[in-house]
Amino acid sequence: MPALPDRLADRLITDQDVARTYGVDASPGSVAPAEFTVVRARDRGDVVEVLTYAAAHRVPVVAQGARTATTGSAVALEGGIVLNTEAINHVEIDPVERIAVVGPGVVNGDLKSQLTAYDLAYPPDPASSGSCTIGGNIATNAGGLCCVKYGVTADYVRGLEVVLAGGEVMRTGRRTAKGVTGYDLTGLFVGSEGTLGVVTEAVLRLIPAPDPALTVLAVFDTLEATMAGVAALRGQRHTPSLLELLDGPSITAIQAFGDYGFPPGAGGVLLVQSDRIDHAHEDVVAYAEALAAAGATDVAVADDPAEADLLLQGRRALNPALEARGPRMIEDVCVPVARLGDLVRAVHQIAERRGLESTCSGHAGDGNLHPCFFFDDTDPAQVDAARGAFGDVVEAAWALGGTLTGEHGVGVLKAPWLEGELGAAEVARQRALKAFFDPLGIMNPGRVFP
Amino acid sequence: MPALPDRLADRLITDQDVARTYGVDASPGSVAPAEFTVVRARDRGDVVEVLTYAAAHRVPVVAQGARTATTGSAVALEGGIVLNTEAINHVEIDPVERIAVVGPGVVNGDLKSQLTAYDLAYPPDPASSGSCTIGGNIATNAGGLCCVKYGVTADYVRGLEVVLAGGEVMRTGRRTAKGVTGYDLTGLFVGSEGTLGVVTEAVLRLIPAPDPALTVLAVFDTLEATMAGVAALRGQRHTPSLLELLDGPSITAIQAFGDYGFPPGAGGVLLVQSDRIDHAHEDVVAYAEALAAAGATDVAVADDPAEADLLLQGRRALNPALEARGPRMIEDVCVPVARLGDLVRAVHQIAERRGLESTCSGHAGDGNLHPCFFFDDTDPAQVDAARGAFGDVVEAAWALGGTLTGEHGVGVLKAPWLEGELGAAEVARQRALKAFFDPLGIMNPGRVFP
Repeated sequence: MPALPDRLADRLITDQDVARTYGVDASPGSVAPAEFTVVRARDRGDVVEVLTYAAAHRVPVVAQGARTATTGSAVALEGGIVLNTEAINHVEIDPVERIAVVGPGVVNGDLKSQLTAYDLAYPPDPASSGSCTIGGNIATNAGGLCCVKYGVTADYVRGLEVVLAGGEVMRTGRRTAKGVTGYDLTGLFVGSEGTLGVVTEAVLRLIPAPDPALTVLAVFDTLEATMAGVAALRGQRHTPSLLELLDGPSITAIQAFGDYGFPPGAGGVLLVQSDRIDHAHEDVVAYAEALAAAGATDVAVADDPAEADLLLQGRRALNPALEARGPRMIEDVCVPVARLGDLVRAVHQIAERRGLESTCSGHAGDGNLHPCFFFDDTDPAQVDAARGAFGDVVEAAWALGGTLTGEHGVGVLKAPWLEGELGAAEVARQRALKAFFDPLGIMNPGRVFP
Repeated sequence: MPALPDRLADRLITDQDVARTYGVDASPGSVAPAEFTVVRARDRGDVVEVLTYAAAHRVPVVAQGARTATTGSAVALEGGIVLNTEAINHVEIDPVERIAVVGPGVVNGDLKSQLTAYDLAYPPDPASSGSCTIGGNIATNAGGLCCVKYGVTADYVRGLEVVLAGGEVMRTGRRTAKGVTGYDLTGLFVGSEGTLGVVTEAVLRLIPAPDPALTVLAVFDTLEATMAGVAALRGQRHTPSLLELLDGPSITAIQAFGDYGFPPGAGGVLLVQSDRIDHAHEDVVAYAEALAAAGATDVAVADDPAEADLLLQGRRALNPALEARGPRMIEDVCVPVARLGDLVRAVHQIAERRGLESTCSGHAGDGNLHPCFFFDDTDPAQVDAARGAFGDVVEAAWALGGTLTGEHGVGVLKAPWLEGELGAAEVARQRALKAFFDPLGIMNPGRVFP
């Protein structure tokens, strides 16, 4: 690779050990390639330089934030440039217009913290909100725990500044509350996983801060009863701000990791929150009654935010607990909420058929679960079985009217199923659309489109 | 034009007088061309036939709903086909998933009515909601009175079925609550004014029905005091579900049309609503106090929904009152809410400089106003002055950080200013994107892009 422009000299990570940490994301088993260059951009100008250079020399570019992606979309490419945008982290908050204009490197949780002084909130909250960046959230259209009430990242992005391959700067959307001048390309870039361009600024819509959330925890003997609980909550006029499911095997895994007070042998647990202004308590009491009527054997209501947070710790322990158990494949399918029970049953059946252990928990309020299969990575038959199970779950989700990814994105891991969901004609159209913005094919090539 | 396929024979409007009514939309002074064919499609198959035929014979197609567009985007083109989709009006409501799957011909207000049985709501409500169609709402990304709390049409469209020029059927987005498989093209089609394809089905997101709205009406002596009232409401934690401004000249025009009880000489009126579940009364009382503290000289609170509706009748009378006054040009600019007062002042100054009369009212909560200039259409100098004023307002909105259209769209009337807002490079990109979907240029040619 020819030398990068001088302007970028002090943006390069030259320590090879440090550079290698930028080579991977959080996808299981991701491996950095042998040769790649890491540029930590500090502003739009740096991004323009990199993308001008990359086009001139036809070098592939992987845009990257905090590398919390779970699908391989932020892993370095051989001979390519990793364009890390964590340092582009300016924040401008306008409380009258209720917008924040931010750089892509702003950490989701940091933005949330800064907004408390204004009594405003930015709802999207992936599980990694303490470390993931707004740029990465935009790249994957990230969801999280709040979506049942508040929707996903795309619902809060009003406009973008994007640098295209070749260095052209374009703007999408608007800063004003409304605006329909020309095509709105914002939604096309949100969720495009770095395949179209690099976001250098986003205009985010804010909402008045809700109250601190209160929590209900309900334990059920069976999966069927747990699903009756989900159905009871779907009928509530005041939508919960969080509605999470832990299935039986997830509870066992969490309790093996630490004692979070879940009863052994439970068929399922629902965690439900309300953050409704002045009425969180009233809501959680109503939810608790509905859950008891639906068949919960044990219902606990947290009366204050600290206790509410404590109740949620078991849910938060899920990812570390699964990680502690060993090699695993984690899915991200989304189905109609009414088919949630069918999905969980299908996952357990697939695991049994494939001779694997599984858990199936996640965002019940959206129908977005994260089935997980454990396997022995030293046993090729188990590795094959896990891969097979991964595909089986996608097929099961499709059969239920669902999609192969609710919030993690396609990346590398799910690219083989893209055409199965969209059809050959639509994939061809989307490839052509990528070529429209990236004619040289240097923006995160091989990701999303296999 | 060669004969249309037999299948479409009974979809044609053959009575020339009736056909001519399909030749125009609600844009001022719109005139039907001499020759055009009207097809009233009944299903997707009809749309496919029309767009297959149109591509084969290179005939321009204008997709059309209830023709309430104000910018000329639904006016017939000479020698072209008007493809009316009012009769594609199927409705499937899924209360568990909280979605409605509808044809483009469903009337906005009819969908709202059908949803009441499910205690669900579809918020977008253009002023023409009693007659405008969902397809037209999608074409323009329609807004309306509710946007200050609920956002615009795009915020409720989860997925689309679209027929492209040539007859190919494509689907965008999803039915599930989340989904990030491939690019989401939904937002590109919303607001594209029939220039990319014809929507034949939409998946709409629904919300739990709010309470019937209660209203506050506040009268102010001056524009400055009225703007202080707007600012006071922006600071409320419970966002009003409606926040409308009538300026002094609008009040005079309404009172000349009928007695709606507005005091003569008022500097401005704000109409404010809350529909918050169980708390609408509490909210309107709080709003009334805030408005009185901000300097309102008269504040009326409607205690029940019927009375609340009565208070809003003056606002509803605005459009008929302006229409009754004679030839006029109506704008649709949107500026940051903090610059609303500057916009109103600029409009009045432009009118004075151009020797015209004006009103400047609209959706104060969003910064989206509809300045209106009256002119004598038999006096060429007055016609010129009105045209000049129209452009002056666009320039004023830009200077305030705003946009030339908040919710009406670009159509024909605003196309001359497109490049001024987006820049030549972005317009070229968007033209190329249109060509990507419509390589023959037969979808509503000449609209949006001049």
